[in-house]
Amino acid sequence: MTPRLASGSLAVAERVLDRCDELAAISSSPELLERVHLSPEHRRANDRVAAWMAEAGLTPWQDAAGNQCARLEGARAGLPALLLGSHLDTVRDAGRYDGMLGVLLAIEVATRVARRGEELPFALEVIGFTDEEGARFGNALLGSRALAGGFDPEWWEDRDRDGLTLREAFVDFGLDPARLPSAARRPETLVGYLETHIEQGPYLEDADRALAVVSSIAGARRFEFTLTGVAGHAGGTPYARRRDALVGASELVVAVEQIGRAAGVIATVGRLQAFPGGINVIPGRVEFTLDLRAEHDRDRDAALADIRLRAREIADRRGLRFESREIYRADATPCAPWLQEAVASGIRRTGDDDPMTLWSRAGHDGMAVSGVTDVAMLFVRCGNGGISHHPDETVTVHDVALALDAFEAAVLAVAERVRAEAQRLGASR
Amino acid sequence: MTPRLASGSLAVAERVLDRCDELAAISSSPELLERVHLSPEHRRANDRVAAWMAEAGLTPWQDAAGNQCARLEGARAGLPALLLGSHLDTVRDAGRYDGMLGVLLAIEVATRVARRGEELPFALEVIGFTDEEGARFGNALLGSRALAGGFDPEWWEDRDRDGLTLREAFVDFGLDPARLPSAARRPETLVGYLETHIEQGPYLEDADRALAVVSSIAGARRFEFTLTGVAGHAGGTPYARRRDALVGASELVVAVEQIGRAAGVIATVGRLQAFPGGINVIPGRVEFTLDLRAEHDRDRDAALADIRLRAREIADRRGLRFESREIYRADATPCAPWLQEAVASGIRRTGDDDPMTLWSRAGHDGMAVSGVTDVAMLFVRCGNGGISHHPDETVTVHDVALALDAFEAAVLAVAERVRAEAQRLGASR
Repeated sequence: MTPRLASGSLAVAERVLDRCDELAAISSSPELLERVHLSPEHRRANDRVAAWMAEAGLTPWQDAAGNQCARLEGARAGLPALLLGSHLDTVRDAGRYDGMLGVLLAIEVATRVARRGEELPFALEVIGFTDEEGARFGNALLGSRALAGGFDPEWWEDRDRDGLTLREAFVDFGLDPARLPSAARRPETLVGYLETHIEQGPYLEDADRALAVVSSIAGARRFEFTLTGVAGHAGGTPYARRRDALVGASELVVAVEQIGRAAGVIATVGRLQAFPGGINVIPGRVEFTLDLRAEHDRDRDAALADIRLRAREIADRRGLRFESREIYRADATPCAPWLQEAVASGIRRTGDDDPMTLWSRAGHDGMAVSGVTDVAMLFVRCGNGGISHHPDETVTVHDVALALDAFEAAVLAVAERVRAEAQRLGASR
Repeated sequence: MTPRLASGSLAVAERVLDRCDELAAISSSPELLERVHLSPEHRRANDRVAAWMAEAGLTPWQDAAGNQCARLEGARAGLPALLLGSHLDTVRDAGRYDGMLGVLLAIEVATRVARRGEELPFALEVIGFTDEEGARFGNALLGSRALAGGFDPEWWEDRDRDGLTLREAFVDFGLDPARLPSAARRPETLVGYLETHIEQGPYLEDADRALAVVSSIAGARRFEFTLTGVAGHAGGTPYARRRDALVGASELVVAVEQIGRAAGVIATVGRLQAFPGGINVIPGRVEFTLDLRAEHDRDRDAALADIRLRAREIADRRGLRFESREIYRADATPCAPWLQEAVASGIRRTGDDDPMTLWSRAGHDGMAVSGVTDVAMLFVRCGNGGISHHPDETVTVHDVALALDAFEAAVLAVAERVRAEAQRLGASR
């Protein structure tokens, strides 16, 4: 395989990377990148991206959920839209490509289409979703779920670390909660959704490949766990009388890894804190989380049953109370075969005759968007062993240029397919 | 064993408990008991205790460190003193016996000696130490360390939660920092130090005993540990590539309990937090603490070596970096055998022919006082499973009466021993 780049693609890729740097500077902290839903940084990032969208010849607007959108009409005004996008929010101490890369590449693809004056049988819309990560309110995909009409009004009362509700943060941001339903799209106004995203894993790097077609987005379930024992003086309480919530939680964390490895399921405890937190006080309570993912939902749910069984065994043995609350659940999302084929043909245009296929271990906006239209994704190789959600996350300019060419070709493949379909329908009428 | 109480001891014990209640009302909060060093409550408690000391026929004064003292001369004025006491300060939301019980019992013992007109071969001094708990400035035992000449001038700049320095608080309280050294006693002016204290643990209750001799006050070492791995996306990082600091820390927490149990050492992880703390982010860093106590320093240090070995093994296996910082160290304080024997003979006088011996898992003023004279302690049974540093801390009036009799008998046993020693020295001269 000899990758071949279109003329000018490297220069565009460099601009994309420069813009990633520019967005990375929009952070709540000078030391690290953090940009969460409905923050002042969200506002500034949306404004910056809107300016680039306008420069590209698109018509930008912010929707009622806080997503940054833009539209380029097709052969005639008002056609259904092919959505291209990703997200603009980040976790704390994030990398600079996760999300942003996909939005910026979508703008460049739209720029090329607009410059070429090519008449597409659909409108192109670029979208920068907000709150894909769920870093502020815990509940992820708020932007894409609003677009898909899957926003649950119960979420309005979710609170951030400072106790502010989603509703209050919405109003502070200048949005009107009552107008949120207007962000929802109707299926007949959409052709599909394509997203380019950094892989967030080492599979492409290990295979020495730049790009992959995504076959499905793993389902995930997330839980908040609490183990409650009895706090007590570290000196005065013998082991036989201890009901130490932290030793119990630690046993469970070790078990979660063992169960995940054995089952081929990805199980992670990302958050854990012991209370009251005195250096000479036995922890009376531990709050921690579980994130579970698998290619198939049945494997994920079997691992969950094992983990719960182990938690109850530990709690019984140590005199602790175990509580579990599910805070997120998404079943696996298969990517639409016809859109997968469009992405694969895009990759073939870069010289890779046999594109690699991966399932996404991470969640993506496509999971929500699939509620309203077909979705597919293109993965770009992630350097440094696939490190993600970390400032060392990286891509090469050459891979970004390949992704640009493949993403553009995928859009053109979708156009061809839509034209052919229209012809077929016209012929059979 | 049939405990036998001296006549009138129950009534005195009831007065002691009433006075514990009276002191418990001297608090910075109406809802809970909190009385910290150099506070207005410290002043009121000292004044109240001084009045009781004077009633008992002692001569009270407050020393240059804020300790409330009183003296009863022996067979002639100016003899070296046997110190009897404990502390008058508390933690936040404290029990009402921890410290105060020992001071009030010491007053009652002095009262009995004074009423009996018994000529002792030493003066009796009662002392209510301040700041045993270290609840205000973090650095404990300030009163007893001043008495033992172990006050470090660096501590003057320690600050409380409001940013006030110890020096400023001293002046506000009406004390003169320059005079502090005058609180220090010279070894030749002292015979020894005896303290009665509530056990702060369940060992006496479990053994169905009222009193115990303390063999030593445990040394403690405290550490801040950090395990550093690499944060990464929970979905995208295969197990083989993870450097998850939390699973490593959890293995160590479980190992700390195993090592502590096996070695008869008390090892507690009281504080633990995973960073960055994202629900879908592999923890890249965990900060946690270790508190280690044992009867003998060598056992404590051997357990520490095991824990460090295990930490390094885990770190090597998981690709983590382990760091450890010692933030507190106090070696064990052995109680003087001759004073332990006096306490044991005091307990035997209550009808317990084979007194139980315990080592103190908690710190006490005796640790500091041992720098200037021999020390020993008498423990009184703590109810409610040994609950301590908590409003549910409790003692029975019967146990307090037994403690009174035993403590008085211990003082008389010390007197006998001092007389015998004087005779031996006189005879050999």
